[in-house]
Amino acid sequence: MTYHVHGVSASGNCYKVRLALEQLKLPYVWHEVDMMHGATRTDAFRKLNPNGKVPVLCIDETTTLSESDAILCYLADGTPLMPDDRLQRAQVLQWMFFEQYSHEPYVAVARFIRQFLKQPDDPRLPEKTAGSYRALDVMEQHLATRSFLVGERYTVADIALFAYTHVADEAGLDLSRYPGIRAWLDRVRSQPGHVAMPGVHA
Amino acid sequence: MTYHVHGVSASGNCYKVRLALEQLKLPYVWHEVDMMHGATRTDAFRKLNPNGKVPVLCIDETTTLSESDAILCYLADGTPLMPDDRLQRAQVLQWMFFEQYSHEPYVAVARFIRQFLKQPDDPRLPEKTAGSYRALDVMEQHLATRSFLVGERYTVADIALFAYTHVADEAGLDLSRYPGIRAWLDRVRSQPGHVAMPGVHA
Repeated sequence: MTYHVHGVSASGNCYKVRLALEQLKLPYVWHEVDMMHGATRTDAFRKLNPNGKVPVLCIDETTTLSESDAILCYLADGTPLMPDDRLQRAQVLQWMFFEQYSHEPYVAVARFIRQFLKQPDDPRLPEKTAGSYRALDVMEQHLATRSFLVGERYTVADIALFAYTHVADEAGLDLSRYPGIRAWLDRVRSQPGHVAMPGVHA
Repeated sequence: MTYHVHGVSASGNCYKVRLALEQLKLPYVWHEVDMMHGATRTDAFRKLNPNGKVPVLCIDETTTLSESDAILCYLADGTPLMPDDRLQRAQVLQWMFFEQYSHEPYVAVARFIRQFLKQPDDPRLPEKTAGSYRALDVMEQHLATRSFLVGERYTVADIALFAYTHVADEAGLDLSRYPGIRAWLDRVRSQPGHVAMPGVHA
């Protein structure tokens, strides 16, 4: 079977799905969504995801799955990207919920404002920047003494947090005081089957 | 073994954990956290959760788990509250990530502003209210033809979304035009072992 992904190539949330599919060597077709021109707000798209967000994974002709980190867990199920251990699986989810609640709404939104909306004077940016550094501080404290986020091995938790952390510069953030994060980014990039995220101007 | 939970009784995120522990008949001790007076920002609390948020589940003397929905998945693992089917498990996660990204930051924050900060003129409220109704619209569309969120059975996805939806009135929201949601709230309340959430003024 072949998966169909509806996504925006330069979106970190969509890149998570592409990276997992590539590393798991699963066949897929990518359908680029023109989000900046309203394509996620059409009736056709809302049949794929009533919440109007990318990415969407089409598993078969009638089954779709949304929410990037839920898609990652689905794809990783039974593979080395998801631990077997009950506690470690919960820790993977802990980092994924941290990503969606305490990291993405700051880092990804700051990047979106700067790179897609091109509004460096947006009044939301100071709060988004402060929240980004709070999230990076939490990651640094954890990664300063660890190779990966959970169980000293590469999992979908690392994919989830790599997506926007590795383009933190595009969000106007400075990673120079985060040596643990920078070493972890290099470890993630060196994993077999790693593919880069297409640039925002691609 | 007995779990220890550090939480705020009137927080929906913390109530999720209490409800699951009660329905799974698991022994636990509840440690009330005085969040409104800075107790989540102390060094002692940051040893439990470096991200400074409740709830925290202490599994043993050295193992803690944070993020309410990750805790729900941990507790539900291998129980009737979590489906065995791979796709249904991913759908449970899809609704949980929807809850944390598209529902809680609106409904829970609007409730917090109104009930805890007591600032009904807060300038953030119009945007929080609009986002709340967008999330409720998505839920209503889904629940209009279903008994529960996933697989026509009660799961931790229902616990996750019940937590703040059932106190939507405290967020200044009107559920009268959501008959599907209201019928689902009643079904959740009728589940064996259901316990009510302590009131905001308890």
